[in-house]
Amino acid sequence: MPTFQNVRGMRDLLSEDAQVLTLVVAKARGVAELFGFSEVITPVVESYELLSAKSGEEIRQRMFTFKDLGDRTVALRPEFTASIARLITTSLKNEPKPLRLFSVGSVYRYDEPQRGRYREFWQSNFELMGSSQPEADAETILLTDSLMKAVGLQDYVFKLGHVGILRGILTQEKIDERTQNAILQKMDKKEYDAALDLVNSEKCKTILRELMKMKSSDIFKTAEAVRGLMKSEGYEKSMEAADNLIEILKLATEGGCKIEVVDPAFARGLEYYTGMIFEVYVPELEIALGGGGRYDRLIEAFGGEPTPAVGVAQGIDRIALAGQSQGSVAAPQARKRVVVIPVSPTLKGEATKIARMLRDEGVSSEFEIMGRKMAKALEDADRRKLDFAVIVGEREAKLGAVVLRNLAKREQEVVKMNEIVGKLKK
Amino acid sequence: MPTFQNVRGMRDLLSEDAQVLTLVVAKARGVAELFGFSEVITPVVESYELLSAKSGEEIRQRMFTFKDLGDRTVALRPEFTASIARLITTSLKNEPKPLRLFSVGSVYRYDEPQRGRYREFWQSNFELMGSSQPEADAETILLTDSLMKAVGLQDYVFKLGHVGILRGILTQEKIDERTQNAILQKMDKKEYDAALDLVNSEKCKTILRELMKMKSSDIFKTAEAVRGLMKSEGYEKSMEAADNLIEILKLATEGGCKIEVVDPAFARGLEYYTGMIFEVYVPELEIALGGGGRYDRLIEAFGGEPTPAVGVAQGIDRIALAGQSQGSVAAPQARKRVVVIPVSPTLKGEATKIARMLRDEGVSSEFEIMGRKMAKALEDADRRKLDFAVIVGEREAKLGAVVLRNLAKREQEVVKMNEIVGKLKK
Repeated sequence: MPTFQNVRGMRDLLSEDAQVLTLVVAKARGVAELFGFSEVITPVVESYELLSAKSGEEIRQRMFTFKDLGDRTVALRPEFTASIARLITTSLKNEPKPLRLFSVGSVYRYDEPQRGRYREFWQSNFELMGSSQPEADAETILLTDSLMKAVGLQDYVFKLGHVGILRGILTQEKIDERTQNAILQKMDKKEYDAALDLVNSEKCKTILRELMKMKSSDIFKTAEAVRGLMKSEGYEKSMEAADNLIEILKLATEGGCKIEVVDPAFARGLEYYTGMIFEVYVPELEIALGGGGRYDRLIEAFGGEPTPAVGVAQGIDRIALAGQSQGSVAAPQARKRVVVIPVSPTLKGEATKIARMLRDEGVSSEFEIMGRKMAKALEDADRRKLDFAVIVGEREAKLGAVVLRNLAKREQEVVKMNEIVGKLKK
Repeated sequence: MPTFQNVRGMRDLLSEDAQVLTLVVAKARGVAELFGFSEVITPVVESYELLSAKSGEEIRQRMFTFKDLGDRTVALRPEFTASIARLITTSLKNEPKPLRLFSVGSVYRYDEPQRGRYREFWQSNFELMGSSQPEADAETILLTDSLMKAVGLQDYVFKLGHVGILRGILTQEKIDERTQNAILQKMDKKEYDAALDLVNSEKCKTILRELMKMKSSDIFKTAEAVRGLMKSEGYEKSMEAADNLIEILKLATEGGCKIEVVDPAFARGLEYYTGMIFEVYVPELEIALGGGGRYDRLIEAFGGEPTPAVGVAQGIDRIALAGQSQGSVAAPQARKRVVVIPVSPTLKGEATKIARMLRDEGVSSEFEIMGRKMAKALEDADRRKLDFAVIVGEREAKLGAVVLRNLAKREQEVVKMNEIVGKLKK
């Protein structure tokens, strides 16, 4: 019979890769605690209606959608924000604001697999509900920076934009929301000409073209220039958006995060953004390690009270990959590893007791479960670079002792039962 | 617009519930380390062919099965063992045995929702590949016991059986494997009469009826009695199975785990079991907290080398629920919680810097992101029982200091910047 394979785009994480992913999850959870976020766990399976409501056409087409046995149309979550918005409008409706909510888990998108992109991937997700202040936006940037630092990443680059600048222009030019979404989607994919083709006014095209050229690492100068342009062209809302962007840049910078790029023509795939948006990259990977932004109308669109909100998701497995590429994260050094070997089958029970005692004391202990002869068992322990073998023999057992073998040093000694743990922990 | 709801059977875990689940996951990971298991992460989405191959009709009918956009028939994993078997026959094919593999994550079954049973639930899963020795079986029991103890559970009950005893009889009576599976499924559901209806021989029916009455907490006596019956009736394979069960009972008992019940008519839903099977219960919940057993032919059936194997899965969310019912687990005590409040908007930047400094020192710090007046912000911090407020004022900032307010004691003092962390950590 042929063997079974993974479903295309779905991968396994083994040994060090699994440990590093778990480590990055722990780091994200640590950042959540440092920034005062509470963890919530929402299901992988949600109603299609919920997940598709405001996600944008791009993501909608890439969802794993199906009917469950109760004939409900459901899908695997492509991101966390819709689920959190559902919580805010239902179970958490009466919780006072602000709410700081953290989640971490797997999400699903039917994308073309490439390095760092799979159809199942992991995200940490932070949502800050109830504040329209720029310091809330800055928090999402600062906590992302904190996670990058916790993983030890170097040379990462934050890029900021502001959807409010673009939407301010398009709205004033009487472009309907649906067309606005389409334009922003094109800009997100850097299909700038296609985006401009959807714009009916020549003035608007000129301004957008101008913005597309302004991307720069001189972040405050760029933001001020955008503000000046919006003012001179009479786009009131866009000017306010530029002011807001400047405020956020200031706070994030003062909070110790270096913002490398401001791009006024930057857009993101999800159509619910209304304000500041950002992404963070490393040179090793083409795709962003994380990104987020402000979405002040989503909760209302989901049937809740109007609630300003800002959030960010980080790609846990991409961060793990970047950390491994840069050599900044490695699987945590394991505790000392011990194997407990009975010399003969009649001593299995005694050896089992000793393994129990060691584990109760926090000593990581394998049991020799293959029933192999001593030489074979030791050879295997050597090959796998275990630290110690606790050998349970007839004679020693009678004396309340074992043979403790240091596998690296190839030395052994008889050790009293109550002294084993001390010797192992030394 | 109406709000969105959870899909039926899928739930959210909020605040304490989420923390306790995360805690139990950490405990399971700790047990894996103590027993020398390596973590592997496999996808939630697997091919239907893989997941349905040996899972049994019962589970097959309850899987979330669908076609992906590439027209592949896939399903959400209802358990971990099939995925691990896939690994053993592919990526890990050449790894020397024994292999000890740990996984933890969500699994999916379309069951009727009830207390402690949802359509998305969490399992920790341990598989021990390559050993046919009874000490390997004992390890799966002992590590489960270790997890129960780590969570502080009381009054839990281990029940053991041995599919080899039942299959030995049925095979000798020339009942084909398909019918055997159907009989064991009925016995699993305690539909004993329906099970007996599928048996064609009167002798066999009598023996099975006998076994169904032998369930007892006098575990060694019961196991010996089963052995005696098998011997006197001439069921050679079943007698060997009873011997094996006795060995496992001895080792698990000597390893410090109390086995409360031996039930020779015990069967489990998954049809791949070949030897010892077990489950663990608490009085508070009708459904098992965990269970497993030996499956010596699965790897071969999946196209791999013949590989004896034994495994166990624990229901993480059920263990969390049981722990909460018994009052043995609670969300970990949070670190001291601090809120940083700028006295006026012009001090937001300065306050951001101070929050950064605190977080860099590991102090969990919220930032006052609502732009509220001081009195309002403090009132909110009081309500949420935060420990300290770090108040950033104009005058103090010029002196390189802040006002540190102990919210419980309602006392405050001016503290130099470099002394804040010391004061907070005291």
